[in-house]
Amino acid sequence: MKPAMSKVKRIEGVLSPVITPFRKDYAPYEERFVRHCRWLLKSGCAGLAIFGTNSEANSMSVGEKRRLLEALVKGGVSPATLMPGTGHCALADSIELTRAAVELGCAGVLMLPPFYYKGVSDEGLYRNFAEVIERVGDERLQLYLYHIPPVSQVPITLALIERLLKQFPASVAGVKDSSGDWPNTKAMLDAFAKSGFDVFAGSEVFLLDNMRGGGKGCITATGNINPGAIDKVFRNWRGPDADVLQKDITATRNVMQKYPMMAALKAVIAHYARDAEWATMRPPLVELTPAQSKALMAELEARGFDMPGLAAASATVTA
Amino acid sequence: MKPAMSKVKRIEGVLSPVITPFRKDYAPYEERFVRHCRWLLKSGCAGLAIFGTNSEANSMSVGEKRRLLEALVKGGVSPATLMPGTGHCALADSIELTRAAVELGCAGVLMLPPFYYKGVSDEGLYRNFAEVIERVGDERLQLYLYHIPPVSQVPITLALIERLLKQFPASVAGVKDSSGDWPNTKAMLDAFAKSGFDVFAGSEVFLLDNMRGGGKGCITATGNINPGAIDKVFRNWRGPDADVLQKDITATRNVMQKYPMMAALKAVIAHYARDAEWATMRPPLVELTPAQSKALMAELEARGFDMPGLAAASATVTA
Repeated sequence: MKPAMSKVKRIEGVLSPVITPFRKDYAPYEERFVRHCRWLLKSGCAGLAIFGTNSEANSMSVGEKRRLLEALVKGGVSPATLMPGTGHCALADSIELTRAAVELGCAGVLMLPPFYYKGVSDEGLYRNFAEVIERVGDERLQLYLYHIPPVSQVPITLALIERLLKQFPASVAGVKDSSGDWPNTKAMLDAFAKSGFDVFAGSEVFLLDNMRGGGKGCITATGNINPGAIDKVFRNWRGPDADVLQKDITATRNVMQKYPMMAALKAVIAHYARDAEWATMRPPLVELTPAQSKALMAELEARGFDMPGLAAASATVTA
Repeated sequence: MKPAMSKVKRIEGVLSPVITPFRKDYAPYEERFVRHCRWLLKSGCAGLAIFGTNSEANSMSVGEKRRLLEALVKGGVSPATLMPGTGHCALADSIELTRAAVELGCAGVLMLPPFYYKGVSDEGLYRNFAEVIERVGDERLQLYLYHIPPVSQVPITLALIERLLKQFPASVAGVKDSSGDWPNTKAMLDAFAKSGFDVFAGSEVFLLDNMRGGGKGCITATGNINPGAIDKVFRNWRGPDADVLQKDITATRNVMQKYPMMAALKAVIAHYARDAEWATMRPPLVELTPAQSKALMAELEARGFDMPGLAAASATVTA
């Protein structure tokens, strides 16, 4: 292990798995990305879980992700706010991007298990994460495990977390639970939260429950469009109106969930930023249809939804 | 499109998704890989579907695969025998490895659909494959679609094949059907075989049926260890003893299928090559236990199974 250059403060609050803008030719659009990240940090996000599922990160190469990460830091976004997704199918890729993130000073990394092979053993998953931690070999590494069985099809079990925490207590920092299964999040909180293992809900729907159970916040798709209101729940979770605030953000989430989430997020940003190219999806994902997009905007407007400052923050992006 | 430098002859017969040897530190072991490929081509394989599911290819980076591919061609293996797997989650990765394969003169490439996002549309998958074909932009490209829903969870539908064949008749060459669902293979044969679309069964269990239905062979895990007997079915499929020969290779396959396939293949090669390091698996996969390995060898020996020439072909590999 290299000695820790400086202790990184752990992020608590609302993190957005930042959606990734692409040009019409599917190339990542760095300038739009940096501007959206800045807007998110001004609008309620405590951190940015770039390269998450909702970022279409698995449709990008390691090289493309490294260039976006470097552009972000060069663009003035503090690495202390960053928790990039660095888990890939290929062990070599996970090591490369995790090392790059740590060397740039990122607060943490959020790691998918290798997800191509199904029905793999906890022993095999343990070896994967252990190998990444040992190869990166840097005390600054704060690794958050990413449990999202509906997509990855490869779960992170409680037994695996326990084994990793025991072997690497200084490196294994927490988990994002995107199972959508509250009893599972509760089990993670009950088993590990007291020992300094930070549990993030994978949707703001569970934010209040997660805070009351000893969690540290949420990492949520809709953090891309509704960060202020979600952050309000985080800041007021002990307050008298916490349940009312939670009900409001859940209702907005429920509107979004009627549509394919990633395409819907981009449609909303394209609309409120007045920047149509934002809607572009990289294959294998596709944009909303114009009819879907129109119906979604109508539903959001009926709720009084807005994205304050987004159009101004995006206005000077050049083609 | 670049003009075709030379028309590549399409492979027919038995292809092996070549297992990839790793050192104890999980680095790919090029010398063992080249030697195993040479043995396969001498022992009945018409072609080598390197970087397949059984190759642990999805546990390797694009760079690692490019180095193995280059080592193989430098090591004297003709690219006319090669059908590397080049499909990744990330469009940029699929384009890079497909281009490298075409430029080296490979007979074809076998492409997984992007497999992280689930429930994706045929439109999104069409865009993925179309983008690869257009970006590679080389008439030599012979693309075989890889349908393996039990692992990828993302199917290649008949409608998608039809659309791709219509748009890119010179590039879309065939399919490997690893669904394990014979009616699906039959439907592919009935719909497309007569128009020059080459259907390969994903297991030798369906080899005889596939040949009788107008297919071109099989691409099968156990081609790594039993290529001679499987090739015998291919060469004699019109003969009077075809069903007896098929029964024999199916019985060997059934022994292997009692164990985790990739670890079992490596255990068998480690045993018959007298080269224990061959058994190493890259995370997230793990080796057979010693008890599993012993039981497997006993079952194979009871069947009179052998791998002629393997020990000699592997004898001079240095550590």
